[in-house]
Amino acid sequence: MLTIYSDDHRLHHGAAELYRGRMVPCFEMPSRVDQVLEAVRAAGLGDVVAPDRFDRAVLARVHADDYLTFLETAWDEWTALGETGDALPATWPARGLRRDVPPQHIDGKLGFYSVDASGPITAGTWTAVRSAADCALTGAQTIAGGAASAFALCRPPGHHASARTMGGFCYLNNAALAAQYLRDHGAARVAVLDVDYHHGNGTQDIFYERGDVYFTSLHGDPQVEYPYFLGHADECGAGEGLGANRNYPLPWGTSGADYLAALDQAIAGIAAFAPDPLVVSLGVDTFAEDPISHFKLRVDDFTAIGQRIASLGRPTLFVMEGGYAVADIGINVAAVLTGFVAGAA
Amino acid sequence: MLTIYSDDHRLHHGAAELYRGRMVPCFEMPSRVDQVLEAVRAAGLGDVVAPDRFDRAVLARVHADDYLTFLETAWDEWTALGETGDALPATWPARGLRRDVPPQHIDGKLGFYSVDASGPITAGTWTAVRSAADCALTGAQTIAGGAASAFALCRPPGHHASARTMGGFCYLNNAALAAQYLRDHGAARVAVLDVDYHHGNGTQDIFYERGDVYFTSLHGDPQVEYPYFLGHADECGAGEGLGANRNYPLPWGTSGADYLAALDQAIAGIAAFAPDPLVVSLGVDTFAEDPISHFKLRVDDFTAIGQRIASLGRPTLFVMEGGYAVADIGINVAAVLTGFVAGAA
Repeated sequence: MLTIYSDDHRLHHGAAELYRGRMVPCFEMPSRVDQVLEAVRAAGLGDVVAPDRFDRAVLARVHADDYLTFLETAWDEWTALGETGDALPATWPARGLRRDVPPQHIDGKLGFYSVDASGPITAGTWTAVRSAADCALTGAQTIAGGAASAFALCRPPGHHASARTMGGFCYLNNAALAAQYLRDHGAARVAVLDVDYHHGNGTQDIFYERGDVYFTSLHGDPQVEYPYFLGHADECGAGEGLGANRNYPLPWGTSGADYLAALDQAIAGIAAFAPDPLVVSLGVDTFAEDPISHFKLRVDDFTAIGQRIASLGRPTLFVMEGGYAVADIGINVAAVLTGFVAGAA
Repeated sequence: MLTIYSDDHRLHHGAAELYRGRMVPCFEMPSRVDQVLEAVRAAGLGDVVAPDRFDRAVLARVHADDYLTFLETAWDEWTALGETGDALPATWPARGLRRDVPPQHIDGKLGFYSVDASGPITAGTWTAVRSAADCALTGAQTIAGGAASAFALCRPPGHHASARTMGGFCYLNNAALAAQYLRDHGAARVAVLDVDYHHGNGTQDIFYERGDVYFTSLHGDPQVEYPYFLGHADECGAGEGLGANRNYPLPWGTSGADYLAALDQAIAGIAAFAPDPLVVSLGVDTFAEDPISHFKLRVDDFTAIGQRIASLGRPTLFVMEGGYAVADIGINVAAVLTGFVAGAA
């Protein structure tokens, strides 16, 4: 399995995020990917290559043009005010406020284009974010070219980013870009399976009214977990997408066995949809020792996840999402990927 | 002019707010009110009295029941998780997210019931917030009883709080509670004039579809100023409230003369509405030296504001809102009130 990776992810290294009423060091940090890269190499998974470069027009297949412009220009607008630290939003168009008039001031724009205070914009964020999208798109290109599988080692992650909002450490939706690329290059039907601990609200939102991309996610129940305001079981898609969205909100403390039982249901849903390729939003923050999550999965469970995904027998692109137990993230990701390879053999 | 004041405001003293990407000491601090109280006394404005206590049912005339319960219980839910510092939200139901399912976890609730990260909830917040509402309601009771004027020295302020959200240092909407109390006690028509630097988004939202309460606000243009997502000139009310909402967004650098010209228009609108009593959301953050604002008013302009308000000849309740140039807040508030008294004489 080819791994696509870019060193440019290091250019995004936020200092702090707002968490439980105080600023704490960003959970989403460069060393996460270092660990994964090392584990992938140690597992002998295959070659590691740099991504190709994709045009902005490819990003615009998923993201709104004004949002892309915001991401490109936010740091310059921020520093033009004399700021030197990371940019973070502080005011949002939440309940009771208008969402139809983008503000002109960068403080307002930051809120308009985001849903939380977890993702700083730094000097190198846009370059890093584009490199992550390029990794996902290169992975999709690999699959479109006939590969059975690929691993886009993206950072920052992407599944919380919608067409027009950042959040949850995500800026561009790497998995959605990959799915759209596959649709644009021969695949009639694409499924996205999101096994990150957190609901992939961005991916769901992007494809919610489309019948050609099936989205299914297992995650901590949004009643008690980020992103709190999407990911309920009653979200089944709308319009042409009705029936092409399936959520499995699971309670705190979910065991590996219970998780795998829910995964079997999600996989049955994918099989019924009969996609051409499959995109997997691969987070391993379901791990028992993840510092911000509440499931109980162990490394063997990650192997089992990979095996079950392989059982679908579809060309499969894995796209890196979350996982914040840095010491174990590499082992757990490699377990999924080697489990997949073994299952596919 | 009677001033209504409670020492309980001191129980709300947040440590820090998220501002420009970092935590800074709360701009909204107890010493603001100390300065105003001292200046009111020095000006010989009249007696200073403690508020009466009003039932929760009176608060529920304006605020949603679930929101009141949230404010009452948030600190206990927060500390039950082992937290000891101030509670702040970090994730909001902004664009692309659902607003119809209140989360169960306190982190989600904080976002569900707020619009920004500026207003911490502390151990004493609910007591302080209720005391501020009691000040406003006692002021309204005084006006309903026949007084020509009164000053509710509220803290925390209120005009950014909607029926179901906190934000902008505000929790309960003191001015809206007073306006509603006046409606419930004999006044057929009430006007609210908001001269705080920031748009009174909460008050507007509360009365937007009502024809019996006229709301008009002069403020920094939301294109470039908090609250960013409400306060545009095209917001004129809806349904029975169509025509009973009038905003005057003004640019950075607005002078006293330009401000007073806009105020004359706002006052003409109030006169045309012909209210019984008038409620004034009195912020003095339009002051030239306010640390977070961009207008250029001086103390003489505040005197002129008071005189112009007096020209309406209506029973008038002043309700304290913002103003963050602590050394001058008292002088500027006293200038408005003494200007009013002189103008009414």
